[in-house]
Amino acid sequence: MNFANIIEKKKNKQELTAQEIYWVVNSFVNNTLKDYQMSSFNMAVWFNGMTPTEIAAFTQAMMDSGITYNLDDVEGLKADKHSTGGVGDKTSLIFSPLVAKFGVKVAKLSGRGLGQTGGTIDKLESCPGWTGEISEDRFKEILKTVGISIMGQSSEVVPADKKIYALRDVTGTVDSIPLIASSIMSKKLVIPADSIILDVKMGSGAFMKDLDSAIKLSKAMITIGKEHKRNVSVMITNMDKPLGRAIGNAIEVKEAWDTLNGNGPDDLVELCVTAAGLTLVQNKVFSDLETAKKELLNVLKDKSAAHLLKDFIEAQNGDFGVILDYDKNFTTKHKIEITAQKDGYVSFASADQLGYLSMHLGAGRATKEEEIDFSAGIYLNKTTNEFVKVGEVIMTLYTNRDDIESFKQKANELIVLNENSHDEDLILKLLTNDDV
Amino acid sequence: MNFANIIEKKKNKQELTAQEIYWVVNSFVNNTLKDYQMSSFNMAVWFNGMTPTEIAAFTQAMMDSGITYNLDDVEGLKADKHSTGGVGDKTSLIFSPLVAKFGVKVAKLSGRGLGQTGGTIDKLESCPGWTGEISEDRFKEILKTVGISIMGQSSEVVPADKKIYALRDVTGTVDSIPLIASSIMSKKLVIPADSIILDVKMGSGAFMKDLDSAIKLSKAMITIGKEHKRNVSVMITNMDKPLGRAIGNAIEVKEAWDTLNGNGPDDLVELCVTAAGLTLVQNKVFSDLETAKKELLNVLKDKSAAHLLKDFIEAQNGDFGVILDYDKNFTTKHKIEITAQKDGYVSFASADQLGYLSMHLGAGRATKEEEIDFSAGIYLNKTTNEFVKVGEVIMTLYTNRDDIESFKQKANELIVLNENSHDEDLILKLLTNDDV
Repeated sequence: MNFANIIEKKKNKQELTAQEIYWVVNSFVNNTLKDYQMSSFNMAVWFNGMTPTEIAAFTQAMMDSGITYNLDDVEGLKADKHSTGGVGDKTSLIFSPLVAKFGVKVAKLSGRGLGQTGGTIDKLESCPGWTGEISEDRFKEILKTVGISIMGQSSEVVPADKKIYALRDVTGTVDSIPLIASSIMSKKLVIPADSIILDVKMGSGAFMKDLDSAIKLSKAMITIGKEHKRNVSVMITNMDKPLGRAIGNAIEVKEAWDTLNGNGPDDLVELCVTAAGLTLVQNKVFSDLETAKKELLNVLKDKSAAHLLKDFIEAQNGDFGVILDYDKNFTTKHKIEITAQKDGYVSFASADQLGYLSMHLGAGRATKEEEIDFSAGIYLNKTTNEFVKVGEVIMTLYTNRDDIESFKQKANELIVLNENSHDEDLILKLLTNDDV
Repeated sequence: MNFANIIEKKKNKQELTAQEIYWVVNSFVNNTLKDYQMSSFNMAVWFNGMTPTEIAAFTQAMMDSGITYNLDDVEGLKADKHSTGGVGDKTSLIFSPLVAKFGVKVAKLSGRGLGQTGGTIDKLESCPGWTGEISEDRFKEILKTVGISIMGQSSEVVPADKKIYALRDVTGTVDSIPLIASSIMSKKLVIPADSIILDVKMGSGAFMKDLDSAIKLSKAMITIGKEHKRNVSVMITNMDKPLGRAIGNAIEVKEAWDTLNGNGPDDLVELCVTAAGLTLVQNKVFSDLETAKKELLNVLKDKSAAHLLKDFIEAQNGDFGVILDYDKNFTTKHKIEITAQKDGYVSFASADQLGYLSMHLGAGRATKEEEIDFSAGIYLNKTTNEFVKVGEVIMTLYTNRDDIESFKQKANELIVLNENSHDEDLILKLLTNDDV
C-alpha cells in the first residue's frame, strides 16, 4: 500500500477500501505518513467528501488508535451525550440526573474548555476536590451506585483525532463534514453506550453555518452510529444565542442545580427535557417524545432528580456544599452591572463574543496552560427577546480582574436593543435513527 | 495577511491577489508557511485551478525567489528551448546549431537526468572536460563568439520551484496544469530570451495523458509568456515512442552529430527542423514555417551547422574528438543484440520503460547520487513501425554491467511485433503566440 495510489484514488473520487483508510490513519499516527501528506489527503477529502463506507472505516481506524472502555459488567441501559459546543451550555449537568432518574445510566467522557467555549470538566471542578481523573474501575463503580459518571478525556483516547485535528486546524480543512463527523463519533464510540444524543449547534459562529450542512453532518453521524450498532439522535440547535442566563463555571453549576429544582430558564429547560426525552425514547423508557417531556417536566417541578447531581459530584470527590451556599463561596472583587441605554428587546451581537467576554473575565482560557477563575462569569439579567427599560440591568459581570472599563465597553458593544422582538426557535430540527 | 484567509479563498474559488500569492510563495521559501500548509494549498489548486492572473503572479513570485540573468550586452536575438522530457530526446543538441546558423543565439539552462529521462548536461559531459558550471560572464562570452551556450541550472535558480516540486511529488499534486505551467515557465523566464519553444510531451507516461490537457497546459504557458513579453511557441509531441535510434549519453551526442551531418533518423530530423523553424519564424528570420523547414533541411544536408555543435562543446572545455572517433572511445564490456522472435512491425510497450532499461544499463541514475556510465545505452536497429524479420536485430544494448539475462528479458518484454503498421503522428499540434 502506498500514498501515491491512495491520493490518486481520492482525487479521482474512487472509493478507498477500509484497508487503505486504516493505512492512512495508522501511518500518520506512527509518523511514516508525513503531515504534509495527511494535509493533502484532508484537502482532497474536503473537495471530494467520503462515502459512508469510507467514513465508517475512518472513524473505526481513529477509534482503534487509542484506548476504549468496556462496560459489560455494568448492568442496564447506558446513555451518552455530546454537544458541538455552545456558550452557557451546562446541559449535561441537567440531562444526566434527568436520565438517571429513569434508570438509564449516563456514562460520559468530557473535555476542558478553550477560547469562548466552556468545558464540562472545568465547570465540575468548581466543586473543590471534584476530579475527572478516575480509573475505569471507579468509573464503573459510580455508574453502578449513582448512575452517572463523567471522566476526563485522557490523551490516550483517540490520539489519531488529536493529531489530525491539530493539522486540520492550520490547513483549512476543519469545515469538512466527513472529517467532523468521524472526529466526533470516534470519541463517542470509545464508550459503549446504548444511545447517544448529539446537540449540533448551528449559527454564524459554529462549524455548521446553515441548516442544510447541519442536517448533512447529523445524518453522517447517525449513519456512523448505525454501522456500530449505536442508536444516535440529533438535535440541531441555534447557537446564535447563549443558553440560559449563566456563563462561567460555578455560576453554570448553580444554574443547573436551580434548573433541577424547578427554577430553570425556559430555553435551558426546553433543551434539557428534549435531550433527555429523546434519550429515554431511544432506550424505550417512553414510547414517544411528548410523553417523555411531560414526565421530565414533572421531575424538574418535584425536584426529585436534583440529588443525583449532588450524589454524582460527591462520588467523584467534589464538595457540592459550595454550590448550595453559592453567594458566600463565589465572591468576586468586581461585580459590574451593565444597564440599558434605551428601551428595547434584548439581543446579543454574537453568542461567541459573550463567550470570549466571559473568558476575559477569568472564566475561560485563551491558551491551554491558563488557570480558570471559577467564580468569574456573566449573569444575563435579561436575555434574548426580553424587554428592557432604559437604566435596567441587562447583565452582570463577575471578575477578579481590574480592566473594568474595557469589560464594560465590550459588554455594551455586544448588546443590541431592538424595537420589535424577533422570536427564533432554539431547537431547529430533530433527527433520529429512523431519518437515515 | 494570513494562511487561514488565503486557503478559504482558494477553497471557495475566489481569485487571490498577487500580494497573497507572493505571500504564500515567500512564506514557504523562508519556512514561515509550513510544508503541510503548502501541500493543502497545492491540493486546493489541484481542484480549483488558478486564474491567468494568479498563474502570472505565482510564476513571478517563484522566479523572484532566486537569481536571474541579464543578457543586455549580448547583441542580437536570443532563443530558448525546453522539453518536458522524453526518452532519446537529444533535440537541443541539433536545434541549437540550426538556430545559431541563422544568427539567432541559443541561451539555455539545462538540468541533469533522473530516472527514465536523460538530461542534456549529462549527455554533454560525455565529452571529457565539458562543463555547464560556467560564470555568467563566460556564458555571455560564448554566446557572443559561438552563438550557443548551455549552463547547468544552479540551485540558486528558482529555489521556490525546487522546494514546491519536491512537496508536490509526494503529495499527489504533480498533475496540476497551473502548477506545471508556472514551474516550467518560472525557470524559462530566468534567461531573457526573445523566443521560447516548448516541446510538451503527451502520452501514457507523460504528465499530459491527452491532447486536451496538453493544449490547456500549452495555452497556460503561452499566456505566462505574453505577460512577460516573451514569444512562446509550443509543439505537442507523442512521447509514446522514443526519439531517434539512440538512448544514452555519448550515443545520443553521436546521433546528434550524425543528424547535423545529414544522417539523422526521420523522426528526430522532423522534430528538430520544426522546433528550429518555429524559433526562426518567432524571430522573423523567416515569414512562415514551411520555408524555414525547407532551408533547415538544406543546412542538415550541406552539414554547414555541424561545426557549431563542436565549437560550442569545445568553448565549454569539452573534448569533441571522442565523438568523432566514437567506436574507439565508447566501448563497453557487453554488447547484447536483441533479435526478433517472429516477423512483424516493431513497436515498444512503453517508451518510458526503454528509458528505465537504459538507466539500468548504466546510462541513467535511479537516485541523484549515482554516477553515469557515458558509454552505456541502447541503439534501436529497428524502431517504431519498421518491419523486422524473425532473427533480425531489433536493438543493441551497451553495458558494463553483468546482469545480461535480466537485460535481455526486460528488452524482450518491451518489444511488441504487430501484423500491421500503426502510423502515429510524432508532432500532434503546434501552438503559437497567436493561438491564445
